[in-house]
Amino acid sequence: MTNQELKEEDLKYIFHPCTQMKDHEKLPLISIKKAYGVYLEDFEGNRYIDAISSWWVNTLGHSNKFINEKIKAQLDNLEHILLAGFTHEPAVKLAKKLVELTPNGLDKVFFADNGSSGIEVALKMAFHYHANKGEKREYFVSLENSYHGETIGALSVSDMGLYKDVYNPILIKTLRAKSPKSQTKEEAKIALLDMENLLKEKHKNIVAIIVEPLIQCAGNMNMYHSDYLVGLRELCDLYDVFLIADEVAVGFGRTGKLFACEWAEITPDFMILSKGLTAGYLPLSVVMMKQKIYDAFYCEYDTKGVKSFLHSHSYTGNPLSCTAALAGIEFLENENVIENNKKTIRFIQEQLKRLESFPTVTNIRQQGMVCAFDIVGYKSEDRIGIKFYEYALKMGVILRPLGNVIYFMPPYIITQEEIEKVFDTIVKSLKNL
Amino acid sequence: MTNQELKEEDLKYIFHPCTQMKDHEKLPLISIKKAYGVYLEDFEGNRYIDAISSWWVNTLGHSNKFINEKIKAQLDNLEHILLAGFTHEPAVKLAKKLVELTPNGLDKVFFADNGSSGIEVALKMAFHYHANKGEKREYFVSLENSYHGETIGALSVSDMGLYKDVYNPILIKTLRAKSPKSQTKEEAKIALLDMENLLKEKHKNIVAIIVEPLIQCAGNMNMYHSDYLVGLRELCDLYDVFLIADEVAVGFGRTGKLFACEWAEITPDFMILSKGLTAGYLPLSVVMMKQKIYDAFYCEYDTKGVKSFLHSHSYTGNPLSCTAALAGIEFLENENVIENNKKTIRFIQEQLKRLESFPTVTNIRQQGMVCAFDIVGYKSEDRIGIKFYEYALKMGVILRPLGNVIYFMPPYIITQEEIEKVFDTIVKSLKNL
Repeated sequence: MTNQELKEEDLKYIFHPCTQMKDHEKLPLISIKKAYGVYLEDFEGNRYIDAISSWWVNTLGHSNKFINEKIKAQLDNLEHILLAGFTHEPAVKLAKKLVELTPNGLDKVFFADNGSSGIEVALKMAFHYHANKGEKREYFVSLENSYHGETIGALSVSDMGLYKDVYNPILIKTLRAKSPKSQTKEEAKIALLDMENLLKEKHKNIVAIIVEPLIQCAGNMNMYHSDYLVGLRELCDLYDVFLIADEVAVGFGRTGKLFACEWAEITPDFMILSKGLTAGYLPLSVVMMKQKIYDAFYCEYDTKGVKSFLHSHSYTGNPLSCTAALAGIEFLENENVIENNKKTIRFIQEQLKRLESFPTVTNIRQQGMVCAFDIVGYKSEDRIGIKFYEYALKMGVILRPLGNVIYFMPPYIITQEEIEKVFDTIVKSLKNL
Repeated sequence: MTNQELKEEDLKYIFHPCTQMKDHEKLPLISIKKAYGVYLEDFEGNRYIDAISSWWVNTLGHSNKFINEKIKAQLDNLEHILLAGFTHEPAVKLAKKLVELTPNGLDKVFFADNGSSGIEVALKMAFHYHANKGEKREYFVSLENSYHGETIGALSVSDMGLYKDVYNPILIKTLRAKSPKSQTKEEAKIALLDMENLLKEKHKNIVAIIVEPLIQCAGNMNMYHSDYLVGLRELCDLYDVFLIADEVAVGFGRTGKLFACEWAEITPDFMILSKGLTAGYLPLSVVMMKQKIYDAFYCEYDTKGVKSFLHSHSYTGNPLSCTAALAGIEFLENENVIENNKKTIRFIQEQLKRLESFPTVTNIRQQGMVCAFDIVGYKSEDRIGIKFYEYALKMGVILRPLGNVIYFMPPYIITQEEIEKVFDTIVKSLKNL
């Protein structure tokens, strides 16, 4: 097999996700043979630094030996069984571990199998909770510039026109509040005031507020101050509205702590985890919730199932996915990864200074293991982000952009030398634009 | 670890899918240590025949050595990379194979990672197709008694009150047509007439019709004649409306042919596959579509993405899941499984006759590797299905019911001896009720 052969076969059959396929008449489609550590390697031995962690999922490097061995052992025992009426060690151990690791008060775990489905579980469960309490509420609130996934419910609480506008006639009605537009305390205050005004007026009809804590990732990597989360928790308590934390992208160490909510020392009512949950190996998501939510569904079955939460996905709690997650957490703990990341985070901070002098670079920002900047001074038709991406690719670094926003979100095992190579590439690409 | 220990730990942390947790104060929650062939084994060496294929996913037995070895080899090479801008052999080989195997004309493959998400992809893509053609259509049509998944979009085209009614205020509006209520040609005609009336009146505002071909699985295993599909295809052509075939549960040999649509010799416009796609190993789904659908999205990118299909899930086209799927297909072909199933299907047909004399058994039905019957003569509060389930469990057979409907949907590698044991158990359970 050669790069070209695989690419040609691919283009005959596959409609790629989040892709205008016509772009691939010019834009390279890279054939990957194998991956290890931070590297992806093609069929001709060219290798690429995976500087975006394969869409933000990979945390501990590709083909991590420790995780591989655990999955292989699990394969010989139990690949999959249904989780209704049955249980298995990987699901139970993982659930227990997640209850220990997540903020105090998140005591129960509902399994799903991708991020969007996890969001839908939380939305449905929050809505159903109020129904079980005899209250009719029907609006979800999310932030401007938010993104929570692609299924109809998840998309309805998103605010990015690029993914959403065309589907508006088939989405459900939701409410939007201002998002804090930068990392200042002032922006947090402005956005909280807007949320308070919305809650004052409509809280009796609001089911829940959903946010991505600290970073609106698909929302152009907009980063904001943890004060916003502190204030939001207070408002949710005051107005008796659920707070749903979508930590699908920001969880598992991305922001510098294990969970982004830790920066504000808050406990949301629901927390959704996916992506980094399995260290980038396999599809899995979980919805963590407070005991009182679980309790609201706990009752005698009434044959019409009215108060029961009867949501399911076939591969929910898949033993291989749970094993990947457990192995990832064990590796994180054994290797003291979150603590060691602090040094890496400081090193990235230093490297970011190299971009300050570029007139085409603005809004340089960092939160833990994620940093980003905007390229300015070009027309949108120029698709400058794509040009930057292509140039960096030629130099062996994957920096897939969000429009004109370039971000760096590497696996945690990246070395300083590799980080320097990424920034060398960024600098050269900027110069070349 | 003992059964009891794992169960106690489980109940501290896990909110199980599709489960009223209070039921587990009495209903057994079974701790599974390992699985092989058709058997699940607990920590005390008790074993259970998985007569429902772990929610209809397992086709080739648990911990199948051939599939295990393929996944292990893949683990050492490439566990996961993003599928946007990149590609890999397992995705390409699987896409090519699926285009070969599915009905003629399904030429492109979009990857997702669970059944519900696959349904949402098809709904959004069908809607978006019309928008790209300058038409405003907004209604999806599904059948009475249908079930297509749990996310808001998938649930909106479902019709089972048990899963849906409480969420009505947050679902999107869809249309419903009569479903053929039995396997007779007459029922097919009645239902087609109803669909034709609906199309006559509203076709200009209808995006697509979605059905589960031949068996409404979660819809109490309602089976219907392939004439309905023939007629439905004709109606969809006549009224220029898409036909979406949800083969998540019925695909991959369940109905006696590789795909249920083959019984009617039709090609739907979209076909969604999941569950048996990975032989019961890992989460994965695909949406197969006609070339003209792919073509409607193929154009110059317009920076607002208006005509592009920008849907994605992080683990889309996961190499390990694709490898499981490819290994499963190779096993199916090498072992001539679909052909051999014909004998198994006849044997099940023979065994079903043992149930005919029971006054509490009605509506005995079979379609390929799925058979079902209803238990009658009890009040709904009796939850007779659950009692049946418990009794069969004690005898080592898993027959999780749908209300008062008992169904048998085994892995294809089940032997005649094991089938006899299942029917012995059914007979004894019925006598014991």
